[in-house]
Amino acid sequence: MKHDAAVLCAMVAAAPFVAASVPAVAAEAARGAEPIEVIRPALVVYPDRVALGKKLFFDPRLSRSGFISCNSCHNLSTGGADNLVTSVGHNWQRGPINSPTVLNSSMSVAQFWDGRAANLREQAGGPIANPGEMASSHELAVEVIASIPGYVEEFTEVFGSPGIDIGRITSAIAAFEETLVTPGSRFDLWLLGDDGALTTQELYGYQLFKSGGCAACHYGPAVGGTSFQKMGIVEEYHTDNPSVGRAAVTGEAIDRFKFKVPTLRNVELTYPYFHDGAAATLEEAVAIMGRLQLGRDYGEQEVADIVAFLKTLTGRQPEILLPVLPPSSNATPRPRPFE
Amino acid sequence: MKHDAAVLCAMVAAAPFVAASVPAVAAEAARGAEPIEVIRPALVVYPDRVALGKKLFFDPRLSRSGFISCNSCHNLSTGGADNLVTSVGHNWQRGPINSPTVLNSSMSVAQFWDGRAANLREQAGGPIANPGEMASSHELAVEVIASIPGYVEEFTEVFGSPGIDIGRITSAIAAFEETLVTPGSRFDLWLLGDDGALTTQELYGYQLFKSGGCAACHYGPAVGGTSFQKMGIVEEYHTDNPSVGRAAVTGEAIDRFKFKVPTLRNVELTYPYFHDGAAATLEEAVAIMGRLQLGRDYGEQEVADIVAFLKTLTGRQPEILLPVLPPSSNATPRPRPFE
Repeated sequence: MKHDAAVLCAMVAAAPFVAASVPAVAAEAARGAEPIEVIRPALVVYPDRVALGKKLFFDPRLSRSGFISCNSCHNLSTGGADNLVTSVGHNWQRGPINSPTVLNSSMSVAQFWDGRAANLREQAGGPIANPGEMASSHELAVEVIASIPGYVEEFTEVFGSPGIDIGRITSAIAAFEETLVTPGSRFDLWLLGDDGALTTQELYGYQLFKSGGCAACHYGPAVGGTSFQKMGIVEEYHTDNPSVGRAAVTGEAIDRFKFKVPTLRNVELTYPYFHDGAAATLEEAVAIMGRLQLGRDYGEQEVADIVAFLKTLTGRQPEILLPVLPPSSNATPRPRPFE
Repeated sequence: MKHDAAVLCAMVAAAPFVAASVPAVAAEAARGAEPIEVIRPALVVYPDRVALGKKLFFDPRLSRSGFISCNSCHNLSTGGADNLVTSVGHNWQRGPINSPTVLNSSMSVAQFWDGRAANLREQAGGPIANPGEMASSHELAVEVIASIPGYVEEFTEVFGSPGIDIGRITSAIAAFEETLVTPGSRFDLWLLGDDGALTTQELYGYQLFKSGGCAACHYGPAVGGTSFQKMGIVEEYHTDNPSVGRAAVTGEAIDRFKFKVPTLRNVELTYPYFHDGAAATLEEAVAIMGRLQLGRDYGEQEVADIVAFLKTLTGRQPEILLPVLPPSSNATPRPRPFE
């Protein structure tokens, strides 16, 4: 029998907190003034929808080539990102922007670096039909999925009536993505009252993070994701990347080079950094952010301390039982990687 | 705590047989004359090596681009193959031959369609260094893996001494691949004495499979994989695919167009078929094989019966808990997808 690891994980994820020496509620109250909040395990309301969404997330048939799935660029083996400067798309096209992690993405104010999708459901439709990414179309994706008997049956069960459309496909993918949260980091254990969870260096790095101004944008449970900020406030940011950021959505000059503040959860795993992927290491990213955003010239030791703190934000990665996908039927449109 | 699903799966895989109504040993004896043998669960001797091999199997850093892993073309969500005519390689190169399934591949007499690798360990080194596939080199792959602290530690634990080389990398991958067996198919339940496991049509299809001569090459636990046979015996096979098959290894004219007989286990999942991927459906593959190899012109109903039988060979797919890969260090050579 197969059980859905993502659901299972989300359901049991609260367990480790029980082991904390201080009762959770009291401890949280004790550190109530911190700008970073504990990540809560995902509340799974529709486990069947999550299981279906997981299949779709891993299904390369949503791409024209049959080679690229959501997991190709939001790889759950590597922090929910692809660790490339910018992603590889259909026909090996070079992506325009660094692939953001899917982990804890449900906590973001909007999706994509420029926030052009209001939520995960809206986001999920983007790459499928983007000629530079999965290069399919919503029509073709629906035709493919609706030709697969195993999916036809599962959609009917999950949604309570027959029918497959792009709304149901993206709803299911979003439901799965909402379970991709990473509680249990050492920083969260500390927030919950475990004083031994962090080293002196890590705590000092956290103090620098707060006193330096990083926490002005990187706050909340996702340590970011809640606002759009200009890349290059004190000093201009130089990049070959043509993206203008939020201005592409609003059309306002004031939004040029504003990007969604990325989550710092699991930042140890989601290199390289920035919307253009130009910072290869955390040390580089911290030094540049300090200078450009805060006007601070952090020394090597300070950078090391902040990086030590940032690495405490790595949480328990979702336990994903790899889905076994229902086979295509003779009627399924075949993938076309080379035409 | 993470447990290795592949190992766990292999260890408990015998369980369903206990539920069979007839004692297994007696039943097998009763059907001792069948050309197809029951698949045995993998015997896991070194579970730590398997767990390490699973990480490497899913690690795109073994490719030059950082985008292609073993699982890209031997996708464990889709029967251990990629369901493409031929695979997508580095820089979107079109692969020369259909990607064979990794499932049950340890039962093959040799690896690759032309058998140029003696075993899985030897095979695993091929795609890593093939410029048309993962496009890395053994030197670079070792440099990358040896720069990742999590791997350094794990290799030392697994092999009992420090050191990472291509032999250890491919040994670990092969150890994982050896666990990728698929017992528990309905056909195996029937072989083990469960008379109700197959329908009348499926049994009739199996009779046709035997009486028609298919079982002359497709026999044993993997229902194939044990010999090299000419593609096109009674009638010549026409294809654009330039592969000469076994002759590329032996240099013998008699081996031209001889290919390793593919396993028919999970053949429902491993479309399209033949070394050139030219047969999109099982029906097409059966009709062509009948005509070219056996001189039989199977009618539509006979094809349907044989296909019904073939679909009973789909076994329990390995339960794979997606590995969480150790992050790169600042010293890790970065992937170069676009240069």
